[in-house]
Amino acid sequence: MHPVRPELAAASVIRHAPTPVPSSIRARFPALTDPAVVYLDSAATTQKPDTVIAAVADYHRAHTANAGRGTYSWATALSARIDAVRTRAAGFLGARHSDEIVFTSGATAALGAIAHSWGLAELADGDEILYHPADHAANVLPWHHLRDILAGFGRRIVLRPYLATATGEADIDDILAQVGPRTRLITTSHLHHVYGGLTTLEELHGRIDPEILLCFDCSQSGGHLPVDVTALRADFAVFAGHKMFGAPGTGLLYCHRRVHDRLRPFLPGGHSGVRITDAGLVSTGMPELLEGGTHNIPGILSLAPAFDLLDELDRFAVAEHNRMLTLRLIDGLRGVPGLDFLPGPAHAGCAVGYGIVSFTLDAISATDLGFVLADAGFLVRTGAHCVPSADPGDGSVRVSTQLYNTLDEIDRFVACVSGIAGHGR
Amino acid sequence: MHPVRPELAAASVIRHAPTPVPSSIRARFPALTDPAVVYLDSAATTQKPDTVIAAVADYHRAHTANAGRGTYSWATALSARIDAVRTRAAGFLGARHSDEIVFTSGATAALGAIAHSWGLAELADGDEILYHPADHAANVLPWHHLRDILAGFGRRIVLRPYLATATGEADIDDILAQVGPRTRLITTSHLHHVYGGLTTLEELHGRIDPEILLCFDCSQSGGHLPVDVTALRADFAVFAGHKMFGAPGTGLLYCHRRVHDRLRPFLPGGHSGVRITDAGLVSTGMPELLEGGTHNIPGILSLAPAFDLLDELDRFAVAEHNRMLTLRLIDGLRGVPGLDFLPGPAHAGCAVGYGIVSFTLDAISATDLGFVLADAGFLVRTGAHCVPSADPGDGSVRVSTQLYNTLDEIDRFVACVSGIAGHGR
Repeated sequence: MHPVRPELAAASVIRHAPTPVPSSIRARFPALTDPAVVYLDSAATTQKPDTVIAAVADYHRAHTANAGRGTYSWATALSARIDAVRTRAAGFLGARHSDEIVFTSGATAALGAIAHSWGLAELADGDEILYHPADHAANVLPWHHLRDILAGFGRRIVLRPYLATATGEADIDDILAQVGPRTRLITTSHLHHVYGGLTTLEELHGRIDPEILLCFDCSQSGGHLPVDVTALRADFAVFAGHKMFGAPGTGLLYCHRRVHDRLRPFLPGGHSGVRITDAGLVSTGMPELLEGGTHNIPGILSLAPAFDLLDELDRFAVAEHNRMLTLRLIDGLRGVPGLDFLPGPAHAGCAVGYGIVSFTLDAISATDLGFVLADAGFLVRTGAHCVPSADPGDGSVRVSTQLYNTLDEIDRFVACVSGIAGHGR
Repeated sequence: MHPVRPELAAASVIRHAPTPVPSSIRARFPALTDPAVVYLDSAATTQKPDTVIAAVADYHRAHTANAGRGTYSWATALSARIDAVRTRAAGFLGARHSDEIVFTSGATAALGAIAHSWGLAELADGDEILYHPADHAANVLPWHHLRDILAGFGRRIVLRPYLATATGEADIDDILAQVGPRTRLITTSHLHHVYGGLTTLEELHGRIDPEILLCFDCSQSGGHLPVDVTALRADFAVFAGHKMFGAPGTGLLYCHRRVHDRLRPFLPGGHSGVRITDAGLVSTGMPELLEGGTHNIPGILSLAPAFDLLDELDRFAVAEHNRMLTLRLIDGLRGVPGLDFLPGPAHAGCAVGYGIVSFTLDAISATDLGFVLADAGFLVRTGAHCVPSADPGDGSVRVSTQLYNTLDEIDRFVACVSGIAGHGR
């Protein structure tokens, strides 16, 4: 039996019964008008609602200027709107202060920013980072790259891999066993991009040195759950705008204020928060310390209607909708002969589910299955899903849902997989 | 007398007489429909043509998927289109091979990528970089940041500032005087963002060690001139998509093949060109070595219609159009009492001009002048223009033109400035 933990419950669906996501919401997504196409790849990127599309087009059509760089009204109005999105993002994600929100070009750049801005200067010989090697490449490779750079200067840090459980979460016991006096950072997926398991690290609270920093990759959870970085006790958290209904090319990096004075610049350029002194570049403040150059302005502006959509529907309702779809999917696939689930909620004893389920069929390779499914109109992801430690043969099919998917789509998908499995036998 | 150099002529307007930019082109820019607004801030960002706006909207409305990450047609078609833009960009910029073109989040990130991927591993104690301190922050701060990081590991590199001439170009004599056996890189603006002077470094060819790398910030020239990175003998060159009619959030980094084996990863993530080995991350090839994570897909797709526009008009014609506007502007402003030009083509003895002119008026601060001009409908840039070495009091007004500007707009602007100068006396 997999216990329902308080924070997990708070972060998902059980606390109150929200108004269900209306089926009419689908009409807000122009890419989803063809009923023959079933989009089940929202973990790769979400479709865009009309309001997001309009916000981007409006910038390009009517108000193109470079924020922060002119005294005329087009430019000053844009600067004010970008500030407003930052404040909005802070509130939306549970950050206490808007200077804790950095705009980046994506979640990958945000994790790279942590490695560069914090790790490069802060880590000493023998320091350790705990990570999960089957996390997304974006939460694995930056730490390897950081280790390589430091090694080039004779500074050796240790990357300690920890395990995942059958339910697709970080194995807390393994983390606790590996935490030591040299542990400086523990990084995890909040919601795993293949397993669909939720990791809050709440079991670590009070049991490890509070100086150890916690880093959450919220790329998958950001569009699915009410994420609260303060409740997570995150020091760092990253989000991908394009996986939460915004335009591509924009990410959010949350940095708790307690780490601000340990950060160095990141890709400095125009309007960065730095000053040239005889002692080198000096910070003039966050969040600009980690920003530089022209922002992806339409991408940032698109976050406001994306947040509006999620607020309007209520993120608890979105989570409940995805839970319902996930459980229906698991129930349906469970009876398919030769189907094996990867770790994840299919192995959980209680009714959790966050919109991601991955599996293999013994009769057909994941790649071939993906082609057959695509021919039948089901758009899913196949392959190793950006897990850098995966072997080339480790392919699986990942199904990922979002608020625009329906039970009928899930049922049709299950029927299609069942047919393929029966045919292949 | 400022001599017209062969490459300068080739890069601008004198070689052949192209068909003039038609005034009807303005109708292609939806933001420019109000004749009372005169946009003279294209060096900050260019307005977007209808085709660029449509390319971005089309991605969001009809084909949102994550390139390279799915086997279904939405995703594979996107991957092919991104590959096509890369090949197109290589041809457009004069690169010999498409693997020399890296997509970045902007020109600032591109220059940061050079500092991180090349400088961090390649530079030894005592190595030198020659740079111009009045270049844009994006071409100054990354080198300072690199020096700081290296200094943290006890490796001391030297940043040698060189001078600019009265015409706003890099002072070649000063560069030659400063080049030495430890010089590893010379970085310059191709077209200076405040002075509007063009620097090709061609005078260095054959006179310095060919192992010294040349780096060009082509943020300003990319949308104005036919830039040929091979003719420039660039090892690195960077471009800002949003300053050449594309959407914000996309840059191009050119890396000559001869430097490829000296590069380390940059912000690695999903689909990066790296492999984890016991010896650390190993390259699996360019350009993916310097890429990672989800691209700004609509931003990249927007580059194709942006290049189309410039090809359709002929970049020689665009250069000639800007030259004509620049000379008219200089001629008009020259008679304004109390007006002083910053370095640039106003000080050149021959008729060069690349769409950027900066000046001060003694009767009114640049900031106040900017407000008065904005009230009159003229959108220009005021301030220190992202020059990190500028004093707070060093403000000026920068006027920057593009293919959609007209002689009539220039005349009205000059009349407005003349009126303000007369009033202030």
